Amino acid sequence: MKIKDIGEQGLLKRLKSFCPHDIIGDDAAVLSIDPQQQLVVTTDVLVDRIHFSQQTTPPDSVGWRAIAANLSDLAAMGASPVGITVGLSLPGNLSVDWVGRLYQGMSHLLAEYNTPIIGGDICRSEVITVSITALGQVYPNHTIKRSTAQPGDVILTTGYHGMSRGGLELLLNPSLAKNLGNKIQDRLIKAHQYPKPRLDLLPHLWEIMKTHTITGMDSSDGLGDAVVQICTMSGVGAQIQLSNLQCVSMISQWFSSEQALNWVLYGGEDFELVLCLAEEKAKKLVEIIGQEAKIIGKIVEEKSVKLIDGDQEQALSLTASFQHFS
Amino acid sequence: MKIKDIGEQGLLKRLKSFCPHDIIGDDAAVLSIDPQQQLVVTTDVLVDRIHFSQQTTPPDSVGWRAIAANLSDLAAMGASPVGITVGLSLPGNLSVDWVGRLYQGMSHLLAEYNTPIIGGDICRSEVITVSITALGQVYPNHTIKRSTAQPGDVILTTGYHGMSRGGLELLLNPSLAKNLGNKIQDRLIKAHQYPKPRLDLLPHLWEIMKTHTITGMDSSDGLGDAVVQICTMSGVGAQIQLSNLQCVSMISQWFSSEQALNWVLYGGEDFELVLCLAEEKAKKLVEIIGQEAKIIGKIVEEKSVKLIDGDQEQALSLTASFQHFS
Repeated sequence: MKIKDIGEQGLLKRLKSFCPHDIIGDDAAVLSIDPQQQLVVTTDVLVDRIHFSQQTTPPDSVGWRAIAANLSDLAAMGASPVGITVGLSLPGNLSVDWVGRLYQGMSHLLAEYNTPIIGGDICRSEVITVSITALGQVYPNHTIKRSTAQPGDVILTTGYHGMSRGGLELLLNPSLAKNLGNKIQDRLIKAHQYPKPRLDLLPHLWEIMKTHTITGMDSSDGLGDAVVQICTMSGVGAQIQLSNLQCVSMISQWFSSEQALNWVLYGGEDFELVLCLAEEKAKKLVEIIGQEAKIIGKIVEEKSVKLIDGDQEQALSLTASFQHFS
Repeated sequence: MKIKDIGEQGLLKRLKSFCPHDIIGDDAAVLSIDPQQQLVVTTDVLVDRIHFSQQTTPPDSVGWRAIAANLSDLAAMGASPVGITVGLSLPGNLSVDWVGRLYQGMSHLLAEYNTPIIGGDICRSEVITVSITALGQVYPNHTIKRSTAQPGDVILTTGYHGMSRGGLELLLNPSLAKNLGNKIQDRLIKAHQYPKPRLDLLPHLWEIMKTHTITGMDSSDGLGDAVVQICTMSGVGAQIQLSNLQCVSMISQWFSSEQALNWVLYGGEDFELVLCLAEEKAKKLVEIIGQEAKIIGKIVEEKSVKLIDGDQEQALSLTASFQHFS
């Protein structure tokens, strides 16, 4: 059944049955924000054939990823989610089932954080567009900024990078799978289709922030982009040890080492956190998170971002990361 | 110059110069909400060739209308605006000037209410899509609902209806202009391109709400839709006197009387408020607003919405108003 067969009201009714506790439609939603906390707002737009495709992203993954991107923005600020709104533009000949599965994917991830869909709008368009605005709340002393990194801080990544990009490659070129075991295939594809925002780490970060500053952002636009942005905003530089980018050697087993390095630095959409903090606190955090977390380098005074491989070094550039309209 | 010539970063830089005090980009924004008030959130999506077109809507009008629709939703709840986020999907071959003018239109209307753009996202798409989320705040006892209308209330409209639809008709069929004076043409076109949300009325409504209930919503989907929705949500009915729909006779001077009635009831996008309240308070409100405001009928117990013309009556239907996907 297609959307145009049941119309706007029919679709809204159908979506209500998919998300019984959610409010969908044009109504404004009322929320109470903890008066001790500040409100945080972030918006992310996903467009068909730019951010997802039939070949790489089933509808529930489109919904999951749209939510993950927004919740990851909140996590990167130190904020807990309060609710989200969903603005959908959909072609009339899209199947109702597709939209239902989109909402299932969104609801599935939102349920893990008890976060409701609090409103939205649905309209007709030739191109599927999913625009999510996420609202969160954060105590002022728990707010993570991008501009407070200092020489002496180490740089910590909370998980593997390049995995989402590797999964995308596998989905685009299924013949690559013959070189890979099932377990690795599943892992790469899951990294691409169902990434997890790192809201789970917030209690640990808030604890550290009682006595120490944490600077950071998420790696949605790539690990390289995150380090360069933090350095630019903080007026500092960074040195990253290639040998600490553990994913490079891991991904090199399956793809070329050049691809591996490129994906780790510029692949994006791994939705991990890139944090700058005192070494002692970073080491504690690595212990808590486990082997996927890694101290990859340090913040320095000299304002350039360098990737160091033994006695060789190269400067990281922003332009290699994903840019729209280029 | 086209967007693809300057890329995403170039566009963001350019937009910053159009709205110097605004934050545009992927960053989450931090806001403080008055702890005495509740947060209200509303989302509206506008799509090229569905909600606007090159022929009828210059880019600054697209921006203005997107903001007006969202601020009108807030006004209909009794809420003051706090900030908005803008999710844009744009084709790479769109001119940078178009986007600049879009932001000028948004900024122009937002400036009247000291409301900042607090964040957003820009990405590539084949179809221009503008997704706005507006945040507002409202004291619990100032919240206007749709579900509290009672028999005995009168129904008040805060301004003319059908004007926006008349303006659209004139823009689509410029030859109609030869029957109309310049002043009327300007007025109809302005009603379509630069509608004003009725935030100006909130202080008067809050004053009334100290002692009396006000039920209401905005007429963005048409006056008929608003009355039917309020009645459905409140479990009541309504009687509207055709003779009180002052715009019908006004618009009939220029278009057919059948078109006039259709546009007044179902045209939509006039962004006035449709309020149900005690007659005595409604009369006071008409005095304050002036001749454009009118008491058009009353709420009754019998659950149907009737349009009364002398001793004739007809039932209003929801299906005649604008529905997506139909």
